[in-house]
Amino acid sequence: MKFTFQNPVQIIFGAGTLDRLGEAVRAHGTKALVVTGGGSVKRNGTFDRAVASLNAAGVSVVECSGVEPNPRLSTVVRGADLARRKACDVVVALGGGSTMDAAKVMAAVVFFEGDPWEMFPHGQANRRLPDRALPIVTVPTLAATGSEMNAGAVITNEKTTIKSFVTAGCLYPKVAVVDPELTASVPKDQTAYGVCDLITHVTESYFNGVDGTPLQDRIVEGIILTAMEWGPKAVADGNDIEARAQVQWASVVALNGWAQVGTFGPYPVHMIEHTLSAHHDIAHGAGLAIVNPAWMRVAARTRPARFAQFAQRIFGITPKHPDDAEAASEGIDRFEAFLRSIGCPTRLSEVGIGEELLDKFAEDTVLVAHDEEGRLPGRPALTPSEIVEVLRSAL
Amino acid sequence: MKFTFQNPVQIIFGAGTLDRLGEAVRAHGTKALVVTGGGSVKRNGTFDRAVASLNAAGVSVVECSGVEPNPRLSTVVRGADLARRKACDVVVALGGGSTMDAAKVMAAVVFFEGDPWEMFPHGQANRRLPDRALPIVTVPTLAATGSEMNAGAVITNEKTTIKSFVTAGCLYPKVAVVDPELTASVPKDQTAYGVCDLITHVTESYFNGVDGTPLQDRIVEGIILTAMEWGPKAVADGNDIEARAQVQWASVVALNGWAQVGTFGPYPVHMIEHTLSAHHDIAHGAGLAIVNPAWMRVAARTRPARFAQFAQRIFGITPKHPDDAEAASEGIDRFEAFLRSIGCPTRLSEVGIGEELLDKFAEDTVLVAHDEEGRLPGRPALTPSEIVEVLRSAL
Repeated sequence: MKFTFQNPVQIIFGAGTLDRLGEAVRAHGTKALVVTGGGSVKRNGTFDRAVASLNAAGVSVVECSGVEPNPRLSTVVRGADLARRKACDVVVALGGGSTMDAAKVMAAVVFFEGDPWEMFPHGQANRRLPDRALPIVTVPTLAATGSEMNAGAVITNEKTTIKSFVTAGCLYPKVAVVDPELTASVPKDQTAYGVCDLITHVTESYFNGVDGTPLQDRIVEGIILTAMEWGPKAVADGNDIEARAQVQWASVVALNGWAQVGTFGPYPVHMIEHTLSAHHDIAHGAGLAIVNPAWMRVAARTRPARFAQFAQRIFGITPKHPDDAEAASEGIDRFEAFLRSIGCPTRLSEVGIGEELLDKFAEDTVLVAHDEEGRLPGRPALTPSEIVEVLRSAL
Repeated sequence: MKFTFQNPVQIIFGAGTLDRLGEAVRAHGTKALVVTGGGSVKRNGTFDRAVASLNAAGVSVVECSGVEPNPRLSTVVRGADLARRKACDVVVALGGGSTMDAAKVMAAVVFFEGDPWEMFPHGQANRRLPDRALPIVTVPTLAATGSEMNAGAVITNEKTTIKSFVTAGCLYPKVAVVDPELTASVPKDQTAYGVCDLITHVTESYFNGVDGTPLQDRIVEGIILTAMEWGPKAVADGNDIEARAQVQWASVVALNGWAQVGTFGPYPVHMIEHTLSAHHDIAHGAGLAIVNPAWMRVAARTRPARFAQFAQRIFGITPKHPDDAEAASEGIDRFEAFLRSIGCPTRLSEVGIGEELLDKFAEDTVLVAHDEEGRLPGRPALTPSEIVEVLRSAL
């Protein structure tokens, strides 16, 4: 185990903490680009409360609304231009993962010279990471992405239909104001997708990371067990703020690095899902619910012991021996059944995707991430035809 | 669940990372006060390697050696005077918890006007927290304290025989260089005490924190299970660097806040132990091994369900009902047996403490920490006579 780790984000967590936004932002700037998504924060009053808190602290507001799901590069460029033109000195993201990701990259594009798509890996040689960004403050309105407390962002280049990611130290928010009350109005389906999203963040490192990280394994298992205990309660009653809080805290910890530190795993399930949601406007969490169990079944063939441990520690299934493929398989079935029980789709047909584009999905996936032999990194690495096999099994 | 959290420490973890000390320190200063303990780092070559790395990076060294176990206020003042006189601009702690704690407070005392004991709570009204310190870089040579990645320190005032603690944002190290190879020469007994120390850090918040922190519970349980799996291996073979690494990572996470965030629990077992080791030069971890099970048996009377959960999740004991006092008791017995199995004392008589000073210990404990009714904070709060009862049961 060898690694370097630092997560400097200050987190202000709890019901009602939105009212502390102004004070949090004021420590970093006086003119905020406030980035929002499709309008729900306006309809439910969150935007007005945020602006009131900012203004009361002496922070003026420049509005940048309309960040779409699977946010586009052109939207990021539009926001950065606005921030530059209006001389904003801080960026506030008020929304879900798409809004936060877009806002984080906007904050960096303000200082980035040349084509911002060069921040993202997509087959080109001349990748350049950003090294400077406006201070960022995140206010998530959805428990899912973990973007509020990490240095990553996923953006889609609509010209090429490629969805790609960037991670850079300057993208760490200064502060994350995490108020579970803001998620009370999230509908059941989106709540369920968020639960799936957060679980998938940690199954990726659990199944694809290096060997010999037992404490990280335990933290991952703790996140999954917490999400499985409280997720169904949040889906059943959106106004159960206790459940909302537990799910949201689990979603923060699922991707702030505490579970992944030193594991260095690639994210094959995310890579495959990104190609689906780049071509179809399906919710990221719904796509993950379809891809993850299908991927697990293929991966379990080469590493049954790992999946048997998952079955044992998450579902209490006792393997007959360490490599018990039957226990491994039962664990995956139980996991898929859990996703279905909270309302996630687990078949491509449920979201209107047929077999027409499977080859294209596989091709796009390895374009964004591939090893020297052209395979998708992971345990095991997958050839394009194996990616097609994963997707075909989920039709 | 409502909290604010930030741990900005950069951690560089892994076998061989001592060689990166110079580079890590150079980012924060050019003249380092290098603080060490009783001399083992000199005998085993660690000190020379550290100085070589510092010098190679262009950092000059001012040596402050001789920090004693249960470090004294006068030692802290001596170090701070030296740092001021020699115009050091960074403090490097190379040693165990005592060395790191002393070094952290030295870094703050450099800028602190007036009596440094006023940083510490000990019954006086005019407590003043430090708000500025020289940059601190920690290099732990023992897996136990967690001091390398947190903002706390414990110091003994030898004039009053009071051991007390301070926590302040400016005491966060800038960098923790955590190299498990440096712990290979730690003898069996100290290794075992370290395992007990790290476990006790998390049992405190687990048993004394607020209700409703299920993910934190899971993280605590993960830390304990990891320590119980790898601790005995590190005790059995000190050169098992894999075991040393797992124990050390568990010790870092046990007190860097990831497990405690939002739990707000007092540390009654530590408070009681501090009075023992302020009067007797016993190892802190050994004292904890004696006090913790005894405290648990008293605390389990009022909250059997909590201890039954501990018994179930750590030892696989199935409670017959949530409040099963028998399961709770069996879990505590198993925990005490684990401590004994790795070589920890669990009775005061084993470390030469009789019943003479029990009243004095109880009195000193509530002097450092007490609620409005004069009881030691915890679940449950304990009167001085109940503290005596805890200690008497461990004679």
